[in-house]
Amino acid sequence: MLIKIINPNTTVTMTEAMAECARRVAAANTRILAASPESGPVSIESHYDEMLSTPGLLDEIRLGEEDGCDGYVVACFGDPGLQAARELARGPVIGIAEAAMHAASMLGTGFSVVTTLARTRGMAWHLAERYGMRRFCRNVRAVEIPVLALEEERSKVFDAILGECAKALAEDDADVLVLGCAGMAGLAHDIGEALGVPVIDGVTVAVKLVEALVSNGLRTSKRGEYAQPLPKRYSGMLASYGAAESSDPA
Amino acid sequence: MLIKIINPNTTVTMTEAMAECARRVAAANTRILAASPESGPVSIESHYDEMLSTPGLLDEIRLGEEDGCDGYVVACFGDPGLQAARELARGPVIGIAEAAMHAASMLGTGFSVVTTLARTRGMAWHLAERYGMRRFCRNVRAVEIPVLALEEERSKVFDAILGECAKALAEDDADVLVLGCAGMAGLAHDIGEALGVPVIDGVTVAVKLVEALVSNGLRTSKRGEYAQPLPKRYSGMLASYGAAESSDPA
Amino acid sequence: MLIKIINPNTTVTMTEAMAECARRVAAANTRILAASPESGPVSIESHYDEMLSTPGLLDEIRLGEEDGCDGYVVACFGDPGLQAARELARGPVIGIAEAAMHAASMLGTGFSVVTTLARTRGMAWHLAERYGMRRFCRNVRAVEIPVLALEEERSKVFDAILGECAKALAEDDADVLVLGCAGMAGLAHDIGEALGVPVIDGVTVAVKLVEALVSNGLRTSKRGEYAQPLPKRYSGMLASYGAAESSDPA
Amino acid sequence: MLIKIINPNTTVTMTEAMAECARRVAAANTRILAASPESGPVSIESHYDEMLSTPGLLDEIRLGEEDGCDGYVVACFGDPGLQAARELARGPVIGIAEAAMHAASMLGTGFSVVTTLARTRGMAWHLAERYGMRRFCRNVRAVEIPVLALEEERSKVFDAILGECAKALAEDDADVLVLGCAGMAGLAHDIGEALGVPVIDGVTVAVKLVEALVSNGLRTSKRGEYAQPLPKRYSGMLASYGAAESSDPA
Amino acid sequence: MLIKIINPNTTVTMTEAMAECARRVAAANTRILAASPESGPVSIESHYDEMLSTPGLLDEIRLGEEDGCDGYVVACFGDPGLQAARELARGPVIGIAEAAMHAASMLGTGFSVVTTLARTRGMAWHLAERYGMRRFCRNVRAVEIPVLALEEERSKVFDAILGECAKALAEDDADVLVLGCAGMAGLAHDIGEALGVPVIDGVTVAVKLVEALVSNGLRTSKRGEYAQPLPKRYSGMLASYGAAESSDPA
Amino acid sequence: MLIKIINPNTTVTMTEAMAECARRVAAANTRILAASPESGPVSIESHYDEMLSTPGLLDEIRLGEEDGCDGYVVACFGDPGLQAARELARGPVIGIAEAAMHAASMLGTGFSVVTTLARTRGMAWHLAERYGMRRFCRNVRAVEIPVLALEEERSKVFDAILGECAKALAEDDADVLVLGCAGMAGLAHDIGEALGVPVIDGVTVAVKLVEALVSNGLRTSKRGEYAQPLPKRYSGMLASYGAAESSDPA
Repeated sequence: MLIKIINPNTTVTMTEAMAECARRVAAANTRILAASPESGPVSIESHYDEMLSTPGLLDEIRLGEEDGCDGYVVACFGDPGLQAARELARGPVIGIAEAAMHAASMLGTGFSVVTTLARTRGMAWHLAERYGMRRFCRNVRAVEIPVLALEEERSKVFDAILGECAKALAEDDADVLVLGCAGMAGLAHDIGEALGVPVIDGVTVAVKLVEALVSNGLRTSKRGEYAQPLPKRYSGMLASYGAAESSDPA
Repeated sequence: MLIKIINPNTTVTMTEAMAECARRVAAANTRILAASPESGPVSIESHYDEMLSTPGLLDEIRLGEEDGCDGYVVACFGDPGLQAARELARGPVIGIAEAAMHAASMLGTGFSVVTTLARTRGMAWHLAERYGMRRFCRNVRAVEIPVLALEEERSKVFDAILGECAKALAEDDADVLVLGCAGMAGLAHDIGEALGVPVIDGVTVAVKLVEALVSNGLRTSKRGEYAQPLPKRYSGMLASYGAAESSDPA
Repeated sequence: MLIKIINPNTTVTMTEAMAECARRVAAANTRILAASPESGPVSIESHYDEMLSTPGLLDEIRLGEEDGCDGYVVACFGDPGLQAARELARGPVIGIAEAAMHAASMLGTGFSVVTTLARTRGMAWHLAERYGMRRFCRNVRAVEIPVLALEEERSKVFDAILGECAKALAEDDADVLVLGCAGMAGLAHDIGEALGVPVIDGVTVAVKLVEALVSNGLRTSKRGEYAQPLPKRYSGMLASYGAAESSDPA
Repeated sequence: MLIKIINPNTTVTMTEAMAECARRVAAANTRILAASPESGPVSIESHYDEMLSTPGLLDEIRLGEEDGCDGYVVACFGDPGLQAARELARGPVIGIAEAAMHAASMLGTGFSVVTTLARTRGMAWHLAERYGMRRFCRNVRAVEIPVLALEEERSKVFDAILGECAKALAEDDADVLVLGCAGMAGLAHDIGEALGVPVIDGVTVAVKLVEALVSNGLRTSKRGEYAQPLPKRYSGMLASYGAAESSDPA
Repeated sequence: MLIKIINPNTTVTMTEAMAECARRVAAANTRILAASPESGPVSIESHYDEMLSTPGLLDEIRLGEEDGCDGYVVACFGDPGLQAARELARGPVIGIAEAAMHAASMLGTGFSVVTTLARTRGMAWHLAERYGMRRFCRNVRAVEIPVLALEEERSKVFDAILGECAKALAEDDADVLVLGCAGMAGLAHDIGEALGVPVIDGVTVAVKLVEALVSNGLRTSKRGEYAQPLPKRYSGMLASYGAAESSDPA
Repeated sequence: MLIKIINPNTTVTMTEAMAECARRVAAANTRILAASPESGPVSIESHYDEMLSTPGLLDEIRLGEEDGCDGYVVACFGDPGLQAARELARGPVIGIAEAAMHAASMLGTGFSVVTTLARTRGMAWHLAERYGMRRFCRNVRAVEIPVLALEEERSKVFDAILGECAKALAEDDADVLVLGCAGMAGLAHDIGEALGVPVIDGVTVAVKLVEALVSNGLRTSKRGEYAQPLPKRYSGMLASYGAAESSDPA
């Protein structure tokens, strides 16, 4: 099975870190590809960044289809372009917020998300609603550390996130925690050990969910909203995206 | 007052038709600008098209800010990139689905949307939810006419839309109708006359809502989620979008 | 265009203050009428007051219809009798809570209402639900100043409302503020300046929304729930309301 | 125990019919008063009628308080003025839609309402939401018989209502039926026999719910929204309602 | 009328206390039976206990049917097995959480529940949702006193519950209180006196609600989900439950 | 990894069929145990059957804990006793309705369930709500074939289910299908091939979801509602369940 993890920002060190985490949990017969787009933002911390990460994301999905990928993980906690990606892909496409929230709902009665910047909290709430997970989402908290700063001063970052997680348990009536940024992937285990509750990193869970669906022969439904985009003319800088018509050999 | 209507697809004849409709309802002291992006899809009929219309839309917002626009209308019924646009703009930004749905909720007890392709119906439902209008939305119906075909054989198109509108009244328990595509703007009046109920075109209503907000001195809140995007590095084809930092002089 | 603002309480100084605010934002070709009923409560601060303000309100709508009004504003934050008014009126009828909440939802991600007495907070929540705005309503706060006291000691009142608005920003995760009483209309601008966020007075926004709808040729739907009331016999003190039948010439 | 049934319309024959039904189910030590207001509409079939029935209703509550009533039933399926009545009353006040819907939710998994005119269906839906009963309400159906016509040609009326009830069972996935008008009170038993499911008349159930609350020593909470209305000046035809201050001896 | 109160735990002193409370409010012609199952947990404080209380509860319903009971009260605040009980019973079956929450919604605008152990709070929230009462439920609070300890040191227990009730009024914006355990039945009156708001014990209210339904000739709907269970083979320890077939003589 | 599938009914042929399906998708290092309880109903088709299946289910969980199972699947579409099972288990416990609905929400925009008897449809709707999946659930349909009859006349059964699935696609606006009974597990692939959309059997998906969680080191949260049941005395036939105290060595 070939699963492609797409980090929609252009920071390759994050992409590599995710791939490493993913490979640790993948099944023996699963091969992990990981990629960042060539164009787009170095990190995603606003609706603006999200929108502008999607051309690169969609490029990577198209390349993945050519490479015969069986499924995809969109590895940014805003799950940008998830639905457009599903239109292009034959196999399943899962966002890491989606994966983490669903998993959280099966392990406890309510989760809190701990994310990077407060300005992105509304996006997490919106995704919780979109996925039906609002009833499980107790709170979305921010440590006010920018995405790229997660990689600096790891122990300070760890302490800040651990502290916010502890507050979530004490104040939010949560019994599960969700880390709200792909850049926090490596921290889940240690925070879980420290606090004695499940702490979920979406990247690794998403990889296993893709495996779960693919091994059951399940693919994205092509009936209706997630059908291949209609072929049409694109202009200017985006002219090449008009080739959509050729990507649907079925 | 300077209001910019942005048609997020590249079909200039649609843009011009909208501008004409808008100028008919605008206040004496309102000036209407209308623009289509240079790059992007010729019509928007999928999540894929929506995502890929946003770089062009955001370009036009940035240009509008330089031109001193007081407010904006995003003139595609999927309201693509609306929230990213709000991050860039100082004045109000209103989507035509947003405008039409809100207006409908003030004129009756429930509305049906009549849109182009069935595959976009889920997007309209999603917007209804996002705007709090789901409780008023009785149905979303499609005539299965592609966006660009709306401009051909106008009388056949008119009949198809009129017929679907009549079915909405008969079957959906709706007392207001919403036309679900900017390309239908010119038809609202005649359908309303024929059926004896309010029929709403989002473009002209959105222009008046922008006027309403601007004349009250109201602008997009810059506290929190709609604050200017953080300045950061963008790569590749999208490198120029990294200039975001210079657009926030505050 | 002729727009009638109906203050459903009998305090004429409030009515005049509203009219003045409204005229400042109205379009050049809009004429503003403002009226208070002859009978009813001097202020509206309970369900009891609301119910008993409606006979006077409906009188004023009927008079407005005779005067050829194009639309109406119900200028009390409880929006009393709004739906009954829609049955009588041909043009649009908009409540100031309705107008303010809808506008707030287009300018930010969440609003708090600051109103007069705590006992009316439930009514504001109920309206938020009715209009689909509950998802945007972060909180409803009260300064515990009765409606009529708003006109006394203006600087003390201003400070109390400003203080509560500041608390809303600090504690409610709101990025827009709504003033929850027609008597606060004059304060929106100054509070907005002080706090740097949009502060909405429903009266002036409602006037512009009526303009927006009327200039688009949109009227209240007479299909279904908002059809003219059936003519019937009324008794006693209210016998004259049985003349409803004569107000529906259609 | 003294329970007052208030029929908010002025049709005394309906009031008497309700009283008779109520006395049949009341406990041995319960005394039933029944009254119609002196002023107001002869039947209630619109928001306009509802609003204008409330001054008379509130008069009757005030009189009931003077008479030492222990609780009240508001006996019109729109439950007009229910919350204002709760402000005036010390004991419980229950609407017949409220009573019927709550009872229905305890006897099956979903109910349909069969009411008089289609234009009032939205009001029933709104009440279902207000009481939390929307999740049990499968449909609201209308037989298009005006309220006063219910008393004419009883067998034709019975057949029409029975037919609509049968359709509700066949088409709505309902297992309980609610009769949506106080004027249908006498029909519940026979329809229930004919169809083999619980058929609920709100009047008699409401009387028993008031008994249930009063016998447990429970009264309307006077903390917060249902506190006595603040005393204040009323003008014109409604001047006497300003005496509210004297009705709160506490 | 014969009403059976089933305490689903095996603590007979609780059963007797409930019966005594119930007899105090029951109508003159109502006879109260009260029973505890022979097998099951001594108290119910987890999902585990709830599930394992249901075989005993269902036994008691079956015995009640043989005894000609007209209706039932399930007297544990988790309302365990309520829907299964409705399948077996001909008359109404009401849970005490159900009764208390419905009553609370008619006496004020929002209630808080005060229960025993914090780990059961989620169950109360779930019931509030199931019954449509979530919109009225302001909070569920726990005093962290196990069910059986309620009977020891009554004055300490009373003080703890009273204190939590007072906090609910001060912090939760509640105007009605619900006691969240059948074992608290005797305390409602005194707490209500102390705090000046309605305080509801579900046991006595449930008895009166059963009376209300039965006296109106209303029984559990046997159309659909609450039809008699299909007769079938049961094995092992539970083999006798397979006799379900014989209890449906219809 | 050791995963135990518990079929809560006593029909061993169904248990064996599930185990076979599960082993086909399980990872190389996963070992599948499958068990039916000794006592309980031969099939589960009512609330009564559900409740009475839980003692047997909980026995199997306890045995599984002694055997060192890493996770569990509750293999009946009503997911009976799921939350009680989570209290007993250290590892994850997943219901097959839960698994199927979550998976469906990731593969399309809306699913319909096709189940056995119509009387169980309400249970599926209730689970959809409980899991947050109501927004994705378009319909729950029944073929009116009892659970045990699924094993007879396989081609007739297949045709009936296929026909109902086809109707779901045509009438429900669904793009994914969920088979609503563990006994339908073997049919998913062929129906999917016939209809060209994803068709989900919960058993195999649940097994993979347990793998996904366990391989990420995630277990049921023991903070709060899913903590081990408190040890206490159980009586009669269920006395042995009181040994709960000894199963929590932590």
